[in-house]
Amino acid sequence: MKKRILTGDRPTGKMHIGHLIGSLRNRVKLQYEYDQFVMVANVQALTDNFHNPEKVKESIGDLLCDYYAVGIDYDVTTVFIQSEVPQIHEIFIYLANFATVQQLSHNPTIKTELAQKGFEKSTPLGFYIYPIHQAADICCVKADLVPVGRDQAPMVEDCRELARKFNQTYGVSVLHEAQALFGASRNLPGIDGNAKMGKSLNNAIYLADTTEELRKKVFMIKTDPNRIRATDPGTVEGNTIFIYHDTFNENTAEVEDLKERYRRGTIGDVEVKQKLYDAMERQLGPIRERRREAEGKKAELLERVIENNNRVRAIAQEVVDQMKDAMKIRFS
Amino acid sequence: MKKRILTGDRPTGKMHIGHLIGSLRNRVKLQYEYDQFVMVANVQALTDNFHNPEKVKESIGDLLCDYYAVGIDYDVTTVFIQSEVPQIHEIFIYLANFATVQQLSHNPTIKTELAQKGFEKSTPLGFYIYPIHQAADICCVKADLVPVGRDQAPMVEDCRELARKFNQTYGVSVLHEAQALFGASRNLPGIDGNAKMGKSLNNAIYLADTTEELRKKVFMIKTDPNRIRATDPGTVEGNTIFIYHDTFNENTAEVEDLKERYRRGTIGDVEVKQKLYDAMERQLGPIRERRREAEGKKAELLERVIENNNRVRAIAQEVVDQMKDAMKIRFS
Repeated sequence: MKKRILTGDRPTGKMHIGHLIGSLRNRVKLQYEYDQFVMVANVQALTDNFHNPEKVKESIGDLLCDYYAVGIDYDVTTVFIQSEVPQIHEIFIYLANFATVQQLSHNPTIKTELAQKGFEKSTPLGFYIYPIHQAADICCVKADLVPVGRDQAPMVEDCRELARKFNQTYGVSVLHEAQALFGASRNLPGIDGNAKMGKSLNNAIYLADTTEELRKKVFMIKTDPNRIRATDPGTVEGNTIFIYHDTFNENTAEVEDLKERYRRGTIGDVEVKQKLYDAMERQLGPIRERRREAEGKKAELLERVIENNNRVRAIAQEVVDQMKDAMKIRFS
Repeated sequence: MKKRILTGDRPTGKMHIGHLIGSLRNRVKLQYEYDQFVMVANVQALTDNFHNPEKVKESIGDLLCDYYAVGIDYDVTTVFIQSEVPQIHEIFIYLANFATVQQLSHNPTIKTELAQKGFEKSTPLGFYIYPIHQAADICCVKADLVPVGRDQAPMVEDCRELARKFNQTYGVSVLHEAQALFGASRNLPGIDGNAKMGKSLNNAIYLADTTEELRKKVFMIKTDPNRIRATDPGTVEGNTIFIYHDTFNENTAEVEDLKERYRRGTIGDVEVKQKLYDAMERQLGPIRERRREAEGKKAELLERVIENNNRVRAIAQEVVDQMKDAMKIRFS
């Protein structure tokens, strides 16, 4: 039997090429090797967007189109919506007995995000508890593996520990101890060179961007700030435009040639950018096409996902029943 | 339509006469005036008894017998089991967006209980969040009123505030803003004079105690420590034995006579205690009889309660559906 993977996204906006490189491409590969579940984490999205439910709702449709566009195969991958699997919340409540407040308050991700969101003095409880809620997500589908970046390894380790504590306390092996799956996922800087790409940073290229928008944004990409004229020698290493070339331009000979001339100061930025635009268009053009197609059948995609929820609920209910058996609180 | 009440108990042991005086008697009256729901809070009991699920399980049967014994009418009162209404956990998760961590960490009840249980350094998350979980209990049955002692008024106020915030944020009136119902509930000291009666304090008289156990415990009740001989004048005010007389001896003329002679120093402790035993036996004897009867039909009572859960789940599902509508996450 194939091992099961759980992954997912918070529906808080359209997906960008950072997502494509960081996770989506990897999922397209993983879906044929594993039994892949992709969760649309709308309950989690609401924890810091509860004042704006319309945005979360709209973004679900966007996510489904983005998934379709990049090649997530809805016949192979089980895409489901978090809020449609209430068993997750039940699992959360029982796992919460095995987590401590101190553990959460020292969680580095929570600490960083609280600071970023200015939540230090008034932290919504729903947001604060989400690392444990994530453990419930993972347990609810009996996931064996969770594809994450290296920085998220502690999150998966915390989840394993919770599952282990539950199993040990009741002398059972009810909860899967999921493992992190480190993939080929890479981090892509924003067009302004910022290490993170994001909507709020206004430095993202979206999968839904038109070819004109793509072109405009490619020509805005940050290059070597010390290179004033085309005849100045430039630095390639850590240069955003070449990170993009390395990521998107499959013509490696061309990339090597561009780098060579950039270093010597025998090429203008315009040529480097034009070639990047051409390369990105070759990759993003077909995705954009499929995305347009997906927009036309958004309702169909949503229906498909709502059907999947039945399958997920059945798995999650099994987990809940087994947890309740272990805790001697199963009556029916 | 009758107003709805929610009340309940944590199944962590047999009930004692402190419960009888503090809440059970009141419920027997309330059940005919209101639509009364009584929740067996086993999920909450597990938050600090998760290592001992057997105790929680056993105590559910005990509670059901105690309820029957004191006159809770299973045809009139809806007794239900918390873990059988998973909607509570879903409501909790959505309410948690409107509570803050700071609010919980300043909650006086939580603070006191953490200190009592020695949890300060390692607080189980499940325990920490229970004030918000209680708000979910109250919302799940659309309770109008919550019978509590004056000291618990802030808990009900917090719940009202959460419901109000939810309703205001989404411009709806989905969640009931329950009010505290202050009853004739009184606090009964333990037989050792301690203000609190409890199993861990080993100072309780249980509804299930035999008449011999009752007699033995009554004769252990603390009296005026400054009164050495039966001829010494004694103090009646704040004297545990007379608090018990005032509570259980319906023959007020006899109580006045005992007090008078006690003050003057013309009565021995034995007579005061024998008369208290007689009075308590008149009240607790029939309860003990009914409790024995209940023991014989524990399975039947449990079945009855499991049936009730269907009714409660239906009400709670309505609440969940309306909350989801408000948050724009209702798909099916």
